[in-house]
Amino acid sequence: MAKVKKTPRPKAETPKGFRDYFGADVTERKQMLDAIAKVYHAHGFDPLESSAVETVEALGKFLPDVDRPNEGVFAWQEADDDTWLALRYDLTAPLARVFAQHRNDLPTPYRRFAMGPVWRNEKPGPGRFRQFYQCDADTVGTASVAADAEICMMLADALEAVGIERGDYVIRVNNRKVLNGVLEVAGLPDEATKERGIVLRAIDKLDRLGSDGVQALLGEGRKDDSGDFTEGAGLDGSQAKTVMGFMEATGSTVDETLSNLSVLVGDNETGSDGVNELRQIADYCADAGYGPDRIVVDPSVVRGLGYYTGPVFEAELTFEIKDEKGRPRQFGSVAGGGRYDDLVKRFTGQAVPATGISIGVDRLLAALRMKGRIGADTQGPVVVTVMDRDRMADYQAMAAMLRAAGIRAEVYLGNPKNFGNQLKYADKRQSPVAIIQGSDEAERGVVQIKDLVLGAEIAETASVEEWKEQKQQFECPLDEMVAKVQEILDR
Amino acid sequence: MAKVKKTPRPKAETPKGFRDYFGADVTERKQMLDAIAKVYHAHGFDPLESSAVETVEALGKFLPDVDRPNEGVFAWQEADDDTWLALRYDLTAPLARVFAQHRNDLPTPYRRFAMGPVWRNEKPGPGRFRQFYQCDADTVGTASVAADAEICMMLADALEAVGIERGDYVIRVNNRKVLNGVLEVAGLPDEATKERGIVLRAIDKLDRLGSDGVQALLGEGRKDDSGDFTEGAGLDGSQAKTVMGFMEATGSTVDETLSNLSVLVGDNETGSDGVNELRQIADYCADAGYGPDRIVVDPSVVRGLGYYTGPVFEAELTFEIKDEKGRPRQFGSVAGGGRYDDLVKRFTGQAVPATGISIGVDRLLAALRMKGRIGADTQGPVVVTVMDRDRMADYQAMAAMLRAAGIRAEVYLGNPKNFGNQLKYADKRQSPVAIIQGSDEAERGVVQIKDLVLGAEIAETASVEEWKEQKQQFECPLDEMVAKVQEILDR
Repeated sequence: MAKVKKTPRPKAETPKGFRDYFGADVTERKQMLDAIAKVYHAHGFDPLESSAVETVEALGKFLPDVDRPNEGVFAWQEADDDTWLALRYDLTAPLARVFAQHRNDLPTPYRRFAMGPVWRNEKPGPGRFRQFYQCDADTVGTASVAADAEICMMLADALEAVGIERGDYVIRVNNRKVLNGVLEVAGLPDEATKERGIVLRAIDKLDRLGSDGVQALLGEGRKDDSGDFTEGAGLDGSQAKTVMGFMEATGSTVDETLSNLSVLVGDNETGSDGVNELRQIADYCADAGYGPDRIVVDPSVVRGLGYYTGPVFEAELTFEIKDEKGRPRQFGSVAGGGRYDDLVKRFTGQAVPATGISIGVDRLLAALRMKGRIGADTQGPVVVTVMDRDRMADYQAMAAMLRAAGIRAEVYLGNPKNFGNQLKYADKRQSPVAIIQGSDEAERGVVQIKDLVLGAEIAETASVEEWKEQKQQFECPLDEMVAKVQEILDR
Repeated sequence: MAKVKKTPRPKAETPKGFRDYFGADVTERKQMLDAIAKVYHAHGFDPLESSAVETVEALGKFLPDVDRPNEGVFAWQEADDDTWLALRYDLTAPLARVFAQHRNDLPTPYRRFAMGPVWRNEKPGPGRFRQFYQCDADTVGTASVAADAEICMMLADALEAVGIERGDYVIRVNNRKVLNGVLEVAGLPDEATKERGIVLRAIDKLDRLGSDGVQALLGEGRKDDSGDFTEGAGLDGSQAKTVMGFMEATGSTVDETLSNLSVLVGDNETGSDGVNELRQIADYCADAGYGPDRIVVDPSVVRGLGYYTGPVFEAELTFEIKDEKGRPRQFGSVAGGGRYDDLVKRFTGQAVPATGISIGVDRLLAALRMKGRIGADTQGPVVVTVMDRDRMADYQAMAAMLRAAGIRAEVYLGNPKNFGNQLKYADKRQSPVAIIQGSDEAERGVVQIKDLVLGAEIAETASVEEWKEQKQQFECPLDEMVAKVQEILDR
């Protein structure tokens, strides 16, 4: 007889590159974002939650005339009108769309913050996910560098609010205009996009390749240890010297750095503008008490994105961690941003200057975990165990008494037959306390309180005598239960 | 000479059926969800944030063998392996996948709550969006009706925590098993899916169609006012009577309702099980002080979804509002849920009983707004105006002083030339206070404080004398500024 073919069971798996966040992961991220939101809100920034889905046209990074414009994004076509939609890949492109769409109703300047997931259709790898959180603050509609300075100072406040101590971070500020000025002086005009691209990437690698490596990339090119050759920008000796001078312009004071830069750009207009803007930002910050221990001018900051047009910022955590080979290194970048004056113009045709910062939520969370600055609230609930199935109402009442006193509590709702399973459950929940009341205790109006934290300690370290004392479990009248549990939690 | 064709500008529009949430919209929703999360957390529920993207296979509602399985969801195909991915359409299907995937690491029973956007690929209409929030709490892995009772009581606590007063809501509980028992008694076995479907939909329409309308749908069918005919379930007189009896079983007490139901199901096993479960739930709730003024057995609750297998719940707000024609009606449903014992089984083959509730976030928010229970924190920041562009640092310092005292404050960062624009900006921001300091005030160490709330009142109602007094603006020493602003905010 032929068997009836069954529909195969679906696989219980997240799609490749996606993950779920449980319990403490969710709570800790929320705790951090709430602290940041409080700082941003205090500075007059308003929350914005734009839709997760945008038209591919509005997102902009992609060509509307290719057959399937989903390079880098998750995209699909509407059924009825062929419009391509996509999940947002960052929070800046949607902000530009929102401001262009609602500019008549929004105040100008518009200060906004946004927190939420973004999606990238990239090859997933270890620790690289296709959905992750961003946390942005931007000011749209003002060309004033006071807005750039404000963003930097507010970022410093936000880092301190979540628990990064002063001295453990620094916000580096540079200006694309200075770099552009230097490149013009070096004889690389605006049109030399390819060479400029190579120069930008080379500067970005100073940390990793050192001065010699960068110099090679500015000239003919560089062969790495594996023998692979990277094409260089083809600058001659004097051009390369100018660019290297830019990266090495950092002096022992902000003034020294700025005058080094002034010399490099000479009378180049773009460059001089840039140096002046940097000076103003440094002055605003210093006047407000944010000195170079927190916010510093640093010519080696480039920032990858093409759309920056003026000041660029990068926040780095400076405390040491060990890399995968056990060598000490700085924790590194947790936030970056800058001025982008042309994103809204795409929609409106009118220039709308804007500046902002984006915090890498997962990076900052990882730093806080390393420093032990987060995770206080991961304790499980008090578990009221079930000795007698018919007395569920009594157990529910105990849990309610505890909750009324502000103590997280629940009744065990699995099969109560095997009491060991109930205690295993409490362990898995990281419960601090279990409550036990059999019919004997019920008659006498008492409960057993089991201190699971102390119990675990005793199990690990106690002598035979201590073990026998069984201090981790004691009896108390029902009407003292809440106070006794509170004592254990306070310890 | 031929003109160079320009690329057309992208449209600054949200995709059809999507929207953006600004300022107070975001804050108020967060405030409400935080209050609900606090209640759920106190009951031992852990937060879960699953990925927004699932495989279509895991979402399950859809056939894997159709060419483009995006009926109702936003779906697309992976570039490299043809897997169909989709945005989640609710939070229950992902929970089933998460539990099946992680069941060895999760505690059982697993209590979890989840809050976040879900997406539906439906035709958008007025007030109907394709992205909206859900807020769910579920207990997975226990068949105990104590879990169902807990969900109902916790929902009552959550509604009160966000500001719905006792008496303004009721949680109605029914049981699919009772209904199934009644249908079996009426001679409609399990296999009569089509007829059962018609009966379920008919019961769900009792409110709207009244007893006669439902009776017609149970029988041959019903012609509505426009002449459209809806096919009926084809029950005969005695069958229809049994079903009508079910809907009309509500007595003046819970006991009366339950014994009416007992009579209807007779010795039908499914039905008797259901009545017993309802009795247990009602007892648990009553014992814990949640009487029929808050949680009530109501045989007319059906709940649309096919996957419910036992108790079903519905929370209704009972206060009156006016409908679109100005007639009074109850606000209606804000949450619904029930027991679904087969969703995890799809993945694992083993039965995993589960029960839960989902709050309609936008509906509940709308109710809170109507009752004036939310929206306290929508005040804009104090705006420090700019009289003298060279003294930005001083203005920044004033804003910092205010923030240090916990007062939301910002410096005007637009073009300061036109002072009227600065005040218009403060208006648009709903600022309570503007700070003004020209060079004259600066020399004397004072500031002007402009009370914008009082100013608006005077502008509307003041007599000429009051107007002349100009009480809404006064001068004070800089070191008293914070205290004076605080006085205005406290008023």
